[in-house]
Amino acid sequence: MPDSGSPPLPSSLPGPNPALERILRGPSGLGTASLHLARREELPEPPAPETPEFETPPAPPEPDTPEPEPAAEGNPIPGLYYHPIPEPDPARVEEVSRRIKAWAVDEAQVYPPEWEDQFDGFSVGRYMVACHPDAPTVEHVMIATRLMVAENAVDDCYCEDHGGSPIGLGSRLLLAHTALDPLHTTEEYEPAWLESLQSDAPRRAYRSAMAYFLETATPSQADRYRHDMGRLHLGYLAEAAWAQTDHVPEVWEYLAMRQFNNFRPCPTITDTIGGYELPADLHAQPAMQRVIALAGNATTIVNDLYSYTKELKSPGTHLNLPVVIAEREGLSEKDAYLKAVEVHNDLMHRFEAEAAALASDCPVPTVLRFLRGVAVWVDGNHYWHQTNTYRYSLPDFW
Amino acid sequence: MPDSGSPPLPSSLPGPNPALERILRGPSGLGTASLHLARREELPEPPAPETPEFETPPAPPEPDTPEPEPAAEGNPIPGLYYHPIPEPDPARVEEVSRRIKAWAVDEAQVYPPEWEDQFDGFSVGRYMVACHPDAPTVEHVMIATRLMVAENAVDDCYCEDHGGSPIGLGSRLLLAHTALDPLHTTEEYEPAWLESLQSDAPRRAYRSAMAYFLETATPSQADRYRHDMGRLHLGYLAEAAWAQTDHVPEVWEYLAMRQFNNFRPCPTITDTIGGYELPADLHAQPAMQRVIALAGNATTIVNDLYSYTKELKSPGTHLNLPVVIAEREGLSEKDAYLKAVEVHNDLMHRFEAEAAALASDCPVPTVLRFLRGVAVWVDGNHYWHQTNTYRYSLPDFW
Repeated sequence: MPDSGSPPLPSSLPGPNPALERILRGPSGLGTASLHLARREELPEPPAPETPEFETPPAPPEPDTPEPEPAAEGNPIPGLYYHPIPEPDPARVEEVSRRIKAWAVDEAQVYPPEWEDQFDGFSVGRYMVACHPDAPTVEHVMIATRLMVAENAVDDCYCEDHGGSPIGLGSRLLLAHTALDPLHTTEEYEPAWLESLQSDAPRRAYRSAMAYFLETATPSQADRYRHDMGRLHLGYLAEAAWAQTDHVPEVWEYLAMRQFNNFRPCPTITDTIGGYELPADLHAQPAMQRVIALAGNATTIVNDLYSYTKELKSPGTHLNLPVVIAEREGLSEKDAYLKAVEVHNDLMHRFEAEAAALASDCPVPTVLRFLRGVAVWVDGNHYWHQTNTYRYSLPDFW
Repeated sequence: MPDSGSPPLPSSLPGPNPALERILRGPSGLGTASLHLARREELPEPPAPETPEFETPPAPPEPDTPEPEPAAEGNPIPGLYYHPIPEPDPARVEEVSRRIKAWAVDEAQVYPPEWEDQFDGFSVGRYMVACHPDAPTVEHVMIATRLMVAENAVDDCYCEDHGGSPIGLGSRLLLAHTALDPLHTTEEYEPAWLESLQSDAPRRAYRSAMAYFLETATPSQADRYRHDMGRLHLGYLAEAAWAQTDHVPEVWEYLAMRQFNNFRPCPTITDTIGGYELPADLHAQPAMQRVIALAGNATTIVNDLYSYTKELKSPGTHLNLPVVIAEREGLSEKDAYLKAVEVHNDLMHRFEAEAAALASDCPVPTVLRFLRGVAVWVDGNHYWHQTNTYRYSLPDFW
C-alpha cells in the first residue's frame, strides 16, 4: 500500500515520477541528512545585513541554559502518508530555542515566565528548524519562529485555551490584524491605535514579529503574508461562528473552514526565510495557488489527526475532521478517524501531483525552490507533530 | 476655506502643487468632460476578446426598456472636501443599467424581480460609469458593476437589510468567500462545495461576477482582489461582533474597522477595468498601500456621512462615524457630524498629498494612471452618494 505507516524511503516512492522526485525530494532523496546540510552550505552568502540584528553571530550556548532538547520520539499515525526527515541540526535548534524564549518572555512579553513549561513543550525551535532547513542564518529561522509564536499567542489568547471566546472575536482579530496591516488614519486618532499595539500579548507579538519580518521580506512577500493572515483570521471566525451555536458543519464545510484556519501563512514564507523571493506574479498563478492550498490543507489535517486526543480531553466539543466525519456520516469514532487519515493522504497525493506538474510546466529556479520549500515544510510539520509527545498522543485505534 | 462646500474648480485648488494637479486632476483638470472622453478615445484597442461575451457590441437600447436615468440631483454636504465630476456618459449608463439588470435578475438570479424598484434606486450603472470613465468598453464597466452588485448582495443578505444577522456570519462569509478564493479538496467533497456556490443569491452573485472578472484580470490582479475581499469580510465580522454585544467602539477602533469594511475592493480594480495592469510589485509598495488605504477610508467615510439619516431610521443602533464620535466624545449629534466631516476632509487631504508624493517619486506610467484611476473612483463615489436621492438625504445641521 502506498500510504504505508512505515514511510517509504525515497527510492521506494510508489511508481516512477522523475519530476516529482527531482522537485519534491531533491536529487539525493529527502531522507538523507546530507542533502539539507549540503544545501545550506552551498547557499550563497545572504545579502549584507541591513541591521545590527543580523550582524550578531550566534552566541555560544550559555552553560546554565537551556536544557538540551530531548531526542525526538513519538510514533507516526499508522497508515498516514508522509515523508520522514533527518533530525534537525541540534546546534541550530538550541540556538533558536534560546533566542525565541528571550524574545517571547523579555522582548515582546508574549508569555509570562510562569508559562515556561508550556512554552518549552511547544518546542517551536525544533519545529521551525525542521521546517526551514535551507535558511541561510539562525536569524532567518528566527523570523519564522517569532511569527509562529505570535500566531499561537493570538490563537491561545483570543480563540482558545487562555481566555478565548467566540464573543467579540471579530473585533479582537481585526484590531490585532492592524499590527500586520497598518491603520492609515488622521493625526488625532493615530496615537491611540499605536498604543493599542502594545496593549496585550497577541498584539505585541504580532507587531514585533512583523517588524522583524519586514526587515527581510520584500513588499510583495509582506503583502502575501498579510493576505494569508487575513485568510487565517476569517477561518478562526467561521470556526467561532459554529462554536457559538454548537453547530457541526457538513464535512465539506469543515474542510472549507480548515482551508482558511490553516498553516498556510507558515509554508508560504519559505522563500523569505530561505533568503530569496518567489516573484509575485508566479506566486499568484492559479497552479501555484492550488499547490499552496493543497499543501496547507494536508498539513492542517495532520494537526487534526495528531491533536485528536488532546482536543477530546478539552472542555466542550472541539471540531476536528474525525469528529465532523463521525457526526455527519454516522461513522464510529475509529472509522471516522481512519477516514480522516484517507482524506489527508488524498490531499497529500494531490499536492504532490500538482506540484510535480507545475514544476514540469514552469521550471523556473525560484518556482522549483519554492515548491521544494513548501514540501519540506509539510514534512517538517509532520515531524514536529509526530515527535511532540508533550502535546500529542495517538488514539488507540489500531 | 479650502474645504469649501462649493467645490473648487481645479484651477482654484488650494495652493500650487503641480504634481498633485498633474496626477490627480489630469492636464486639463478633472472637471472638464473632455478629459474623460478624450482619454477613452485615445486608449489603445483592448486586447482581442477571449470570449464571445466581449465580441457582442453594445445592443441598442430597446424601445420599451429601461426608464431613462433621471438627471442627477442632490446636494453635497456643506463643508465636505470633494471634486465634482462631469455627468457620466448617459448612453453608457443606460447600456450598463440594462445589462446589469439582466445579469442580476435572470442570469445570476441575485434579486427577485419584485425588488426591481430597489435595484433601480441603487443606480449602480450610473455609479460604475462615473467611477470608471477610462474603461475601454461597456463590458469592462460591467466587470466592476457585477462585482459591486455581488458585494451588495452579500452585505444585504448576510449582514444587513434582508435577513442578515451577526449570528453565524463568520460561517456564511467564509463559505461565500470560497466563491472568490476556491476550495481545493478531495474528489469526494468537491461536488457538494461546487453545488453550494449556486445555493443562495450571495454565492451565485460572487461566483458569476468573479468568473467574469477572471476572464480579464491577471492572476496578480485576482490575488489582489481576493485579498481586498478578505479584508472586507474581516471588517463585516468586526462590526458584527460589536453589534452582537451592543458595544460602541472607541473612535479609532471604529476607524480601524472601517478601513476593512471599506470600498477598497472597488477602486483597486481600476486597472483591470481600464484594461491595463499596475504590476504586483508596485501595488505592494508601502507608499502605494498607504495611498490606497487613505483613499478607501475617505470614500468610506463619505458613505457614513451621506447614509447618516438613512441609518438613523433603521431599526437598532447602526454604527457610523458621527454616531461613534457623539457617543465616545460626548458631542451633540450636530457637532459629531461636523467633526466627522473634518475627519473625512483630513483623510482626503492625506490621500492627495501621499498620492502626489508617490507620483513624484515613482513616475511610472502605470503608477500614474492607477493613482488617477483611484482618484477618479473617489470622485465618482462622491458623485453617486450626492446624487442618489432615492437612498440618501442630508440631516438638517446647517
